[in-house]
Amino acid sequence: MSQFTSIADLRAACGDLPSGDAAAAAAVGTRLAQLTKPPRSLGRLEDVVAWLAQWPGRSPPRLDRVDVLVFAGMHGVTTQGISAYPSEVTAQMVANFAAGGAAINQLARVAGAKLRVEALSLDQPTADFTMQQAMDEAAFLAAVAAGYDAVSADCDLVCLGEMGIGNTTAAAALAAALFGGDGARWAGRGTGIDDRGLARKQAVIDKAAALGGRELAAILGAALAARLRRIPVVLDGFVCCAAVAPLKKLNAEALSHALAGHVSAEAGHRILLNELGLRPLLDLDMRLGEASGAALAVLLLRAALACHTGMATFSEAEVSDKSP
Amino acid sequence: MSQFTSIADLRAACGDLPSGDAAAAAAVGTRLAQLTKPPRSLGRLEDVVAWLAQWPGRSPPRLDRVDVLVFAGMHGVTTQGISAYPSEVTAQMVANFAAGGAAINQLARVAGAKLRVEALSLDQPTADFTMQQAMDEAAFLAAVAAGYDAVSADCDLVCLGEMGIGNTTAAAALAAALFGGDGARWAGRGTGIDDRGLARKQAVIDKAAALGGRELAAILGAALAARLRRIPVVLDGFVCCAAVAPLKKLNAEALSHALAGHVSAEAGHRILLNELGLRPLLDLDMRLGEASGAALAVLLLRAALACHTGMATFSEAEVSDKSP
Repeated sequence: MSQFTSIADLRAACGDLPSGDAAAAAAVGTRLAQLTKPPRSLGRLEDVVAWLAQWPGRSPPRLDRVDVLVFAGMHGVTTQGISAYPSEVTAQMVANFAAGGAAINQLARVAGAKLRVEALSLDQPTADFTMQQAMDEAAFLAAVAAGYDAVSADCDLVCLGEMGIGNTTAAAALAAALFGGDGARWAGRGTGIDDRGLARKQAVIDKAAALGGRELAAILGAALAARLRRIPVVLDGFVCCAAVAPLKKLNAEALSHALAGHVSAEAGHRILLNELGLRPLLDLDMRLGEASGAALAVLLLRAALACHTGMATFSEAEVSDKSP
Repeated sequence: MSQFTSIADLRAACGDLPSGDAAAAAAVGTRLAQLTKPPRSLGRLEDVVAWLAQWPGRSPPRLDRVDVLVFAGMHGVTTQGISAYPSEVTAQMVANFAAGGAAINQLARVAGAKLRVEALSLDQPTADFTMQQAMDEAAFLAAVAAGYDAVSADCDLVCLGEMGIGNTTAAAALAAALFGGDGARWAGRGTGIDDRGLARKQAVIDKAAALGGRELAAILGAALAARLRRIPVVLDGFVCCAAVAPLKKLNAEALSHALAGHVSAEAGHRILLNELGLRPLLDLDMRLGEASGAALAVLLLRAALACHTGMATFSEAEVSDKSP
């Protein structure tokens, strides 16, 4: 259970995070050097296996249980006309997740992952953060705890994602607050806002004061829980990355256990990944959220692991190694 | 069976290639517009489903049978010291493919694809093309025919790849002949040649006259067979793309049925993809060949198709569509 009773508590927890296990990563490297392929020729597929091994400290790593956690929240700022879709779509999509009809249902199945959706007080939208604080400290901590508690200690990997009409505006405001720049730097078209809506969205971001969103807070809590349990995390798009960005501000190493599953088409995501020092695995012009890019990345992780565990070594296959 | 009795025949066949079925692609677009997601939010996953539908003229498309075809050949130019590995590794790796120990065995299995390896006259290396023609017309046409005949009409998708110590040198020489530029533009490190070897490789490329390689010719034949049978093709790395580049020179539309599975770390690949007008699906610093990047891309195609066929429509899920 999440033990944070104040934001000060949460900050303190970020000061003392476990490191990865260098020995497990080194063991992966030793095996990689023996497999029947030129050194480094599997590129990032090699890196991700070492990364997967490093966090649990297990070589070879395993991906027996992969959870996809999608958090949903409602945003009062939607009254400002900053989204292409009405805010009731959030709850409708939560129902669609439950019925198996959304993209993430298909992607989680293909990725061999278990989907868990947490709807966070959908009947209580956060306040319009251009007018007042989006939520008070208690509401923020409750959302962090919901995310924290959604991470099972039995997981080998956690994918994080979200659903919340209006949340690219909240994410952009958060990115601007953390990394500087105005609405023009961070606002994108979200689900597909038109030019006038985009201008409104930029203005809203520029007016933001205390901000956030329940699903963003939950993602932060989940990423922190995973780190404390030494479970590697795959991040999704702009909103997900903005949600965990405060961790990076609190501790430069706080996202070492996180991989960016993809870079989305949402304008600010590439800038944000750069600020976070994360290199995305995929770049497919996606901008759906729902952990869709993270779940896709799991396919590559499984492929990487299959090569690592299934390939023959030079000596097993009697293949000549590199000429001296 | 391949019917080409001369290079003139082959050229003529490229002049009259079937087009894709625009109606099948449009049907995919119609369904995509109804699925519970913002328009275009699955990015390239949407494009690839339309592309998969377009070639066989089937909407939704299917991926029931995916073949991975790997062609292997021996290169006389290896005597020039242009590879990090001895040339006997080609045959050793063919044995490794048969035993299931190579990367492509694991990747094909994960991708739900059938691997077929064709070793092309490994006891008869092509001639050193800095000295003489790599092979005569009969040998070239026999290799084209081997590739052509390896494509089964029952396939829903074909991935093409290769194995051949020395073949990035042959590929670079081919790219230079087709698109201009010298060895410095097109030579990369292949399996991992050092600086002195790279300089030798550049010089060899600059000295190339009549050139090629059996596995390159076979890839060309297979890509052409797939087009004539309206089967979409996923290309692998630099060598594979150089092998099909002559088709593009003969007919600007000849590679419309081909998708670049990835861009490799081999220096010339990005340049070559640009010349071919192909945008790669993946960019993972891989440089293994064996169709490894193409097989990985199949994972994304399967995920794209799962979304397309499995997602609910707005009306099925009772989700509000975009605001007016």
